[in-house]
Amino acid sequence: MKTAILLLHCPDKLGIIAEMTKFITDNNGNIVYLDQYVDTVDKMFFMRIEWELENFLIPQDKIAEYFKTLYSIRYDVEFDLYFSDRKPRMAIFVSKMSHCLYDLLARYESGELNVDIPCIVSNHEDMRYVADQFGIPYYVWSINKDHSNKAEVEAAEIGLLEREKVDFIVLARYMQIISDGMIEKYPNRIINIHHSFLPAFVGAKPYHQAYQRGVKIVGATSHYVTADLDAGPIIEQDVVRITHKDTPDTLAQKGSDLEKIVLSRAVKKHVEHKVLTFNNKTIIFS
Amino acid sequence: MKTAILLLHCPDKLGIIAEMTKFITDNNGNIVYLDQYVDTVDKMFFMRIEWELENFLIPQDKIAEYFKTLYSIRYDVEFDLYFSDRKPRMAIFVSKMSHCLYDLLARYESGELNVDIPCIVSNHEDMRYVADQFGIPYYVWSINKDHSNKAEVEAAEIGLLEREKVDFIVLARYMQIISDGMIEKYPNRIINIHHSFLPAFVGAKPYHQAYQRGVKIVGATSHYVTADLDAGPIIEQDVVRITHKDTPDTLAQKGSDLEKIVLSRAVKKHVEHKVLTFNNKTIIFS
Amino acid sequence: MKTAILLLHCPDKLGIIAEMTKFITDNNGNIVYLDQYVDTVDKMFFMRIEWELENFLIPQDKIAEYFKTLYSIRYDVEFDLYFSDRKPRMAIFVSKMSHCLYDLLARYESGELNVDIPCIVSNHEDMRYVADQFGIPYYVWSINKDHSNKAEVEAAEIGLLEREKVDFIVLARYMQIISDGMIEKYPNRIINIHHSFLPAFVGAKPYHQAYQRGVKIVGATSHYVTADLDAGPIIEQDVVRITHKDTPDTLAQKGSDLEKIVLSRAVKKHVEHKVLTFNNKTIIFS
Amino acid sequence: MKTAILLLHCPDKLGIIAEMTKFITDNNGNIVYLDQYVDTVDKMFFMRIEWELENFLIPQDKIAEYFKTLYSIRYDVEFDLYFSDRKPRMAIFVSKMSHCLYDLLARYESGELNVDIPCIVSNHEDMRYVADQFGIPYYVWSINKDHSNKAEVEAAEIGLLEREKVDFIVLARYMQIISDGMIEKYPNRIINIHHSFLPAFVGAKPYHQAYQRGVKIVGATSHYVTADLDAGPIIEQDVVRITHKDTPDTLAQKGSDLEKIVLSRAVKKHVEHKVLTFNNKTIIFS
Repeated sequence: MKTAILLLHCPDKLGIIAEMTKFITDNNGNIVYLDQYVDTVDKMFFMRIEWELENFLIPQDKIAEYFKTLYSIRYDVEFDLYFSDRKPRMAIFVSKMSHCLYDLLARYESGELNVDIPCIVSNHEDMRYVADQFGIPYYVWSINKDHSNKAEVEAAEIGLLEREKVDFIVLARYMQIISDGMIEKYPNRIINIHHSFLPAFVGAKPYHQAYQRGVKIVGATSHYVTADLDAGPIIEQDVVRITHKDTPDTLAQKGSDLEKIVLSRAVKKHVEHKVLTFNNKTIIFS
Repeated sequence: MKTAILLLHCPDKLGIIAEMTKFITDNNGNIVYLDQYVDTVDKMFFMRIEWELENFLIPQDKIAEYFKTLYSIRYDVEFDLYFSDRKPRMAIFVSKMSHCLYDLLARYESGELNVDIPCIVSNHEDMRYVADQFGIPYYVWSINKDHSNKAEVEAAEIGLLEREKVDFIVLARYMQIISDGMIEKYPNRIINIHHSFLPAFVGAKPYHQAYQRGVKIVGATSHYVTADLDAGPIIEQDVVRITHKDTPDTLAQKGSDLEKIVLSRAVKKHVEHKVLTFNNKTIIFS
Repeated sequence: MKTAILLLHCPDKLGIIAEMTKFITDNNGNIVYLDQYVDTVDKMFFMRIEWELENFLIPQDKIAEYFKTLYSIRYDVEFDLYFSDRKPRMAIFVSKMSHCLYDLLARYESGELNVDIPCIVSNHEDMRYVADQFGIPYYVWSINKDHSNKAEVEAAEIGLLEREKVDFIVLARYMQIISDGMIEKYPNRIINIHHSFLPAFVGAKPYHQAYQRGVKIVGATSHYVTADLDAGPIIEQDVVRITHKDTPDTLAQKGSDLEKIVLSRAVKKHVEHKVLTFNNKTIIFS
Repeated sequence: MKTAILLLHCPDKLGIIAEMTKFITDNNGNIVYLDQYVDTVDKMFFMRIEWELENFLIPQDKIAEYFKTLYSIRYDVEFDLYFSDRKPRMAIFVSKMSHCLYDLLARYESGELNVDIPCIVSNHEDMRYVADQFGIPYYVWSINKDHSNKAEVEAAEIGLLEREKVDFIVLARYMQIISDGMIEKYPNRIINIHHSFLPAFVGAKPYHQAYQRGVKIVGATSHYVTADLDAGPIIEQDVVRITHKDTPDTLAQKGSDLEKIVLSRAVKKHVEHKVLTFNNKTIIFS
């Protein structure tokens, strides 16, 4: 059954939930999902509402316009509208490690991850065999050690992403920093996996940092990429217990299982339009 | 059955475990616990060994001397020796919150925590009623806002600790920084609970910091106090999952359960002589 | 600020959430909490809604009647209504172990658990000293080995509970089976803690059962008591990782921390009126 | 560096650890791993010891014989001896689901899982495309609904396993019960993943059972297959928190991540020769 999904937030006020659902029910929409949350500190109202389009009185291509006219200005609403029959197009960026890549592709191949994957992008040839196994085009642009060609490489990458109408990008252990220009083109649409429990161990070699500090638990964090390194809105985190017996190598092994699971959970939430960002934080609908 | 417990570390070498156990078995000691660990990065050997004193050929008060003479210099061993019939004497420092204090005292009262508690020390009167419920002397020294009397207060506290032959101190949400001088008197013998997953959110108001950063998991960390704030050897950590719905207040509530469990686990490990420190990290024997 | 809390469920239908909130907003109530859930398998709608009573047009003592008249029959709603200024009265039943009892009383004493505790009931004298520490009346009725006086004892207990206007009962490791007659008097109002991850290890000595089976994780389960042993609606569960080194004794130690935390979480959810039961399962509002 | 790995158990006695290590050190072996455990209930001693073969005085092909002669009878030792340069040969059995299969193959392809995989066996064609992606021979033998050809199918499978010199079998969500005859040929060498926290929800459709019971946590269990269904020695378990909002479908989705991680952890422990079984339980070395 084809559905529309509305993700919105606005200043909280008396009766706002009834107002917002009225748009759907008055126009004969059958609500199949509703979750809302009031941020009592910032006095903001957040909602995800999904309804069946069959019998809905407003034509699909007019829904956004009608909602904007009738509600958006009146209640100071910001919203995004999605349709269940539009598959998001996802690009994957990788460097040399296969665990996150395999995990995403296995979920894609089995139909668990409802996306199209028009391209895999890398700065190394190493993962081409994995892309080949799944029949997905693999593009390599090497970035020089001195980063002298970085602007050029990113321009080529953006060219590809635009040609392929990519909706969002997953950095599946892509070991390069994305420049601000590219981030601005995909706000809250670049998902990274960082191999630590952020904000602990920002930056390079977090497993070595964790080993050095002697922590008893390590984690992984998936977040939207912003201009501040490893400081974007966190989508998902998880942890695993370790002991004094672990070395940076065994931490990397244990952590790699976390990384792929945490990244995939975040990607699924994004694909299901269950993530709202506000004030550099996320609201995750269930 | 009365036992001796030897905690030791030394440079690793071929056959070291056989050598170290020889001291016990050659002298007719029945080993009831042995756990060892080799740090392959630093090439160090760590061991905890416990044996029954009945029938052991070396008199209890000579064991340390004999072990030192026969092994300590030869193998460059550092060691501590404990006896199961000597109850550690523990002081608790608190400020205004009761959850960690109650948890420790309930375990003490039920016999789960095998210590004597000669005193509870505070900078406020608030927790006196809890100390009274358990019949434990409660001492209050207020520290001025400008810390002008801090040296004086700590001198008084140290006087008390020495009179009461206190072996180690537990900071059960004691909201004061301990001065270096006092720390040096109790190296690896002051156990703190910090209400975050260190090294994330060092310092003041970690739940507010966690809320601000939008993490999906919060933690608690118990560590030995060193001169660097919140940077001493970590004994135990644990975490709990949170959501965007949590506020600093609900984080503090959820976190308080973590704090008391994590602190009590750390205190128990310390009391059972199962913690070894090396290079600002801990080896925790099972 | 004084609030009313409405917990309800009814068959799901189009626009039900708008209908149910209308009762509050039309009568000038300021909603401070709303959470709802639709069981798509059983086609049922569940809601918890809380609003400030100040300015609410319907007098407090008429709210239930009005809601019943206006909604209950029309939408086939079952509901409970609570007021935030009415402290639930909780009885605790214990046998010989103190950890859950101390945990509940410490939370009560610190104000974290918003209840009155008019009595602690036991079949043994052992825990009287704890009740005395907190100044709560302690009643002992011994049940004979052959249970010949069980009916008599329960009659006496029910007499006490009724005199004390007890709202709900917490079995804090009370090692007796409650008879059906007593359960019927307190439907979904007797909270038990079972020291296993139910439905694994029902009945006696679950830690011995867990040891025997060689599981790698043990758990604790808090549930409402029903006529079927250990089979009532589950409110909360949690687990802890163990190893082959654990014995029934160390399992009991590790498990006791779980038990008290899981039980306290369940009691808090119950006290906050955030638990709805349906089809022998619970809906837990956040 | 080539190593030998000795896994042994014997009745515990004074000085047993020194005796067992003597065999290695007396013959000039450099121990790189030693972990031992004493079961104080059953009075049994368990050890895993690994040493470098370079400079070891006993020739590789005589080690088992020498250890048997010198220790096995004298101390009533049962042992297995492995060499690090001998890659275990693993067969995978699957039915129709890809998640565990992909996870194992991705680890194999990246070199994380140090095995050879000569064959994948199934009762359905569905997973052939995955086997093809990784270039591994895929064999299908359908079992009739009435199981009339089961003996015949298993005979063919055993023929394949013997021709391919398979050391152990992984049931990666293989939805058939293995007959006792086949189990006896591979004692403690068939690893299954069951999609529940055993012993809860034995048998068919555990996610439906979990949904029905209303548990707040679901799990996955990897164990060696024995003649008793889902009752063999448990190697690894893990769990994930769920809520009343989960349906059997979402449980299956959340559980599938657990299944693959738990199964892979168990397979890795087995491949690293870190699992000892005794009394239908496992000792897992770190």
